[in-house]
Amino acid sequence: MYSAFPSFYRLLNQHRFSYPLQEAVVCGDTRLSFGELYDRVNRVANAMAALGVTESSRILWLGQNSHALLEIFLACSRLGASFCLVNWRQSAAEIAFVLRDFDPALVFWQEMEFAPTVSDAKIQAPGLASHWISLDGQGSDGYRQLLADASPEGTDTPAAPDTGRALLVLYTGAFGGQPNGAQISEPGLFLQSLVHVNVFEATSDTKTLVSAPTFHITSWLDMLPTFIAGGTLCFARSTDAGEILDLIGSERLTNGTVQPPTAKKIAELNADGSHDLSCFRSPLTIPGWTEMTSRGPGISGTGQTEVVGPVIVGAFAGEGSTPFCGRPAPMVEAKVVDDTGAMVGAGEVGELVIRGPVAGLGYWNRPELNAERLSADGWWHTRDLARRDRDGTISFVGPKSQMVKSGGENVYAAEVENVLKTHPAVTNAAIIGTPDADWGQLVTAVVVTKPDLNVTVEELQEFVRSRIARYKTPRIIHFAPELPLNAFAIDYKALDREFGGGGYPGEEQKNGSNIGATVRK
Amino acid sequence: MYSAFPSFYRLLNQHRFSYPLQEAVVCGDTRLSFGELYDRVNRVANAMAALGVTESSRILWLGQNSHALLEIFLACSRLGASFCLVNWRQSAAEIAFVLRDFDPALVFWQEMEFAPTVSDAKIQAPGLASHWISLDGQGSDGYRQLLADASPEGTDTPAAPDTGRALLVLYTGAFGGQPNGAQISEPGLFLQSLVHVNVFEATSDTKTLVSAPTFHITSWLDMLPTFIAGGTLCFARSTDAGEILDLIGSERLTNGTVQPPTAKKIAELNADGSHDLSCFRSPLTIPGWTEMTSRGPGISGTGQTEVVGPVIVGAFAGEGSTPFCGRPAPMVEAKVVDDTGAMVGAGEVGELVIRGPVAGLGYWNRPELNAERLSADGWWHTRDLARRDRDGTISFVGPKSQMVKSGGENVYAAEVENVLKTHPAVTNAAIIGTPDADWGQLVTAVVVTKPDLNVTVEELQEFVRSRIARYKTPRIIHFAPELPLNAFAIDYKALDREFGGGGYPGEEQKNGSNIGATVRK
Repeated sequence: MYSAFPSFYRLLNQHRFSYPLQEAVVCGDTRLSFGELYDRVNRVANAMAALGVTESSRILWLGQNSHALLEIFLACSRLGASFCLVNWRQSAAEIAFVLRDFDPALVFWQEMEFAPTVSDAKIQAPGLASHWISLDGQGSDGYRQLLADASPEGTDTPAAPDTGRALLVLYTGAFGGQPNGAQISEPGLFLQSLVHVNVFEATSDTKTLVSAPTFHITSWLDMLPTFIAGGTLCFARSTDAGEILDLIGSERLTNGTVQPPTAKKIAELNADGSHDLSCFRSPLTIPGWTEMTSRGPGISGTGQTEVVGPVIVGAFAGEGSTPFCGRPAPMVEAKVVDDTGAMVGAGEVGELVIRGPVAGLGYWNRPELNAERLSADGWWHTRDLARRDRDGTISFVGPKSQMVKSGGENVYAAEVENVLKTHPAVTNAAIIGTPDADWGQLVTAVVVTKPDLNVTVEELQEFVRSRIARYKTPRIIHFAPELPLNAFAIDYKALDREFGGGGYPGEEQKNGSNIGATVRK
Repeated sequence: MYSAFPSFYRLLNQHRFSYPLQEAVVCGDTRLSFGELYDRVNRVANAMAALGVTESSRILWLGQNSHALLEIFLACSRLGASFCLVNWRQSAAEIAFVLRDFDPALVFWQEMEFAPTVSDAKIQAPGLASHWISLDGQGSDGYRQLLADASPEGTDTPAAPDTGRALLVLYTGAFGGQPNGAQISEPGLFLQSLVHVNVFEATSDTKTLVSAPTFHITSWLDMLPTFIAGGTLCFARSTDAGEILDLIGSERLTNGTVQPPTAKKIAELNADGSHDLSCFRSPLTIPGWTEMTSRGPGISGTGQTEVVGPVIVGAFAGEGSTPFCGRPAPMVEAKVVDDTGAMVGAGEVGELVIRGPVAGLGYWNRPELNAERLSADGWWHTRDLARRDRDGTISFVGPKSQMVKSGGENVYAAEVENVLKTHPAVTNAAIIGTPDADWGQLVTAVVVTKPDLNVTVEELQEFVRSRIARYKTPRIIHFAPELPLNAFAIDYKALDREFGGGGYPGEEQKNGSNIGATVRK
């Protein structure tokens, strides 16, 4: 039966007629029109189908950026399969975890760079039935031969886009001890991309750099709006500054995510102005870079991979808003709620919950986690803290995960830390909970101050008390020369060890105690 | 069950939190925030439900522009009802036809202006069970009292948007002898509006004039993008130039459809520059008007009410394209096809067919017509002729309805006329078919030439023959001082009477003859 919802594959089929003179893809020496891309996508899809791929089959990508990932993605749109891109910067053990967890029917892999890692990973994930296709291999198991042998025939009856099926799966941070594959539906991805056509002012003249890791959702929000608008995608294998500098200058690229360290390096490499980068629009403010590029919009706002990125869209917050501030995209519903699910008042901190076609699938293979995060009436609990201000904008406050329970009240570390950090004498702050017989936990701060400024515990307590609720004010404040960090952020576990933290809500559940039991340690 | 597709009612519910400081509606002395609009929409919806309105109930609007039509539209989104706006410029007989055909459960009507017409119409459409609510009445059957008596309670479970159910019904031209109610689904309307947020660059700062008739789809494509973006809608009852001039100046309106005659009159009224209209962005090029307003995008491209307006979007054709030229919106598929359904080549004329969430419902209460127009695999036949050029853009050529059948070939009047009109000596041209024993019909032209330029029949035939297929060249050419016109366009029936036209394909079917019988007259 014909499904009325648009799909990326149907759009590709249209684009070969709408933009016949346009370059769809530039990738090394490969330059493809939409017609040539359509041909290749059909070859991939027909080959995949011959290998047994059907609706809801799982396909894994283990490689750097290349036009092949767009081809396989569009073939998955045609077949209704789920496409997951694994973080190739990970160790063999981490890749083995994803292999076991996602259990893909097919793995497309970049043999040249990753053969040793994959070899190790396969030992740690034995017994999988995946079929492996080498992206760079020249043999019969190689991508090139796969396409050459397959029929280029297209179809007028591709899979019907469905909010109940994942097109894209991206593994996110290892909270709870393991990474989790966030499942994104085709309608959700399509609508969020359509909104970002508007944000980026994408047209068929747009030429987008795809150099950032495509195992992150933001790269897809660079790519897909340009694809929808009939523009050109220019792939760079990774974030090599020299390669990107050459590409922007020679291909006259107009946008794409460039991280600040890369931008800084490009500015240094191009200090002599040998490349004209004025075509490239960037939101970054970096000495050198800003002068040689043009000002342009970037991805901003708040959200998470699980809801197709920043669905609280920065562009809707108006001029001059902070980067993590926005308003909901038109296809989503958003609320900031307390633990009972009731909306909190303007200016109050609560959990951001999201509903709409961008949410609802949860994580692959995590029924218990999904039951916790997705309510019966469709709300996805982001576990992010946010605040809705009087003008209706929503701002990200911090992760909900570091929470202290004191006298029956929830106190979120991020909220108290953010207040402390606005004190002129404070450079950094962390909140932990220390066990207490009467209160369950006491709110405890570890504060780093400026060397030349003195501040007392009482002064800081009064500072916090005058700004947020009294029960959130730290009862204990330690001063420390610096905070311990892990790979991503403050290392709260190290702080707990050093300053006697513990007794967090939920800890007793992990140990099998009754939910809601009074915490006594 | 929760439906993941966005709806206008859900969006309204969001906007009261996202844009609490914003004016949603300005209409005379009425100024509503999104919160106040939400309250009123729920009162309307609860009152309608109490009157028996449920999913797929039909609601008719018989009135000029006002915030009430937006309220009822949004209440229909909540309830899943179908909202039809009847052309109030029509006669009592024409309105009676729509009453009988649409058979509405409720009629919201503007008593003050239309009481005599409605009184006549009711006589011509007896026995209908519609409940009538007066928009301006102060009594118990009035809109004001209806809202006052109803609960303002909202719902978290509004109707689920469905491509299989009409939210909006707009009656289109009386081809085939009667007007037909084009049915538009909520997902189709939402997606086309989302695309036009982009086209109009609508933001929450947008303030849109709603003065053009809302029984035309273009007014909805003015309104809904602004609504989606959280902007302000400013209603003017009708197209009075003085009222519009005042509104643009005092409310600082930014856009909205203004027809050329109204724009001309506004320019005359504001010749002294007493109103500053520089805030208003308009695509019109009209002396006086263009100087006092700013340049801005308008609705352009090609399409028809039946597919939610110009889904072949003018903005996607690039700079400098003609007004009826565009490329498909991302949620639609478009083809230019011959009578077998096969795509014609670049530059060839054929019928424009459309597929996607904007098409597929056809006309209300016209199963036979829908069976003709909507193919089993979802393609809507627009009965419009179009041409896809080598750059992929699609241009409107003319209606398919005026077709001559000569020697078994279809010759579309619009195509031949367009060629003739490019001849320097020709100011206007019409093609009719004249019956012929051998050929079925002969292609016959009626041509108006410039008084000071001479051209022969042979010269014109050679001119056409060198540009399009030989069988399309007029065998007979008449010169006439002018062409007869009806309310909309060339009056082909008058031409047939004057120049002996007749024997058109399909005429025999109307008379009950066999389909495909050779035409002999």
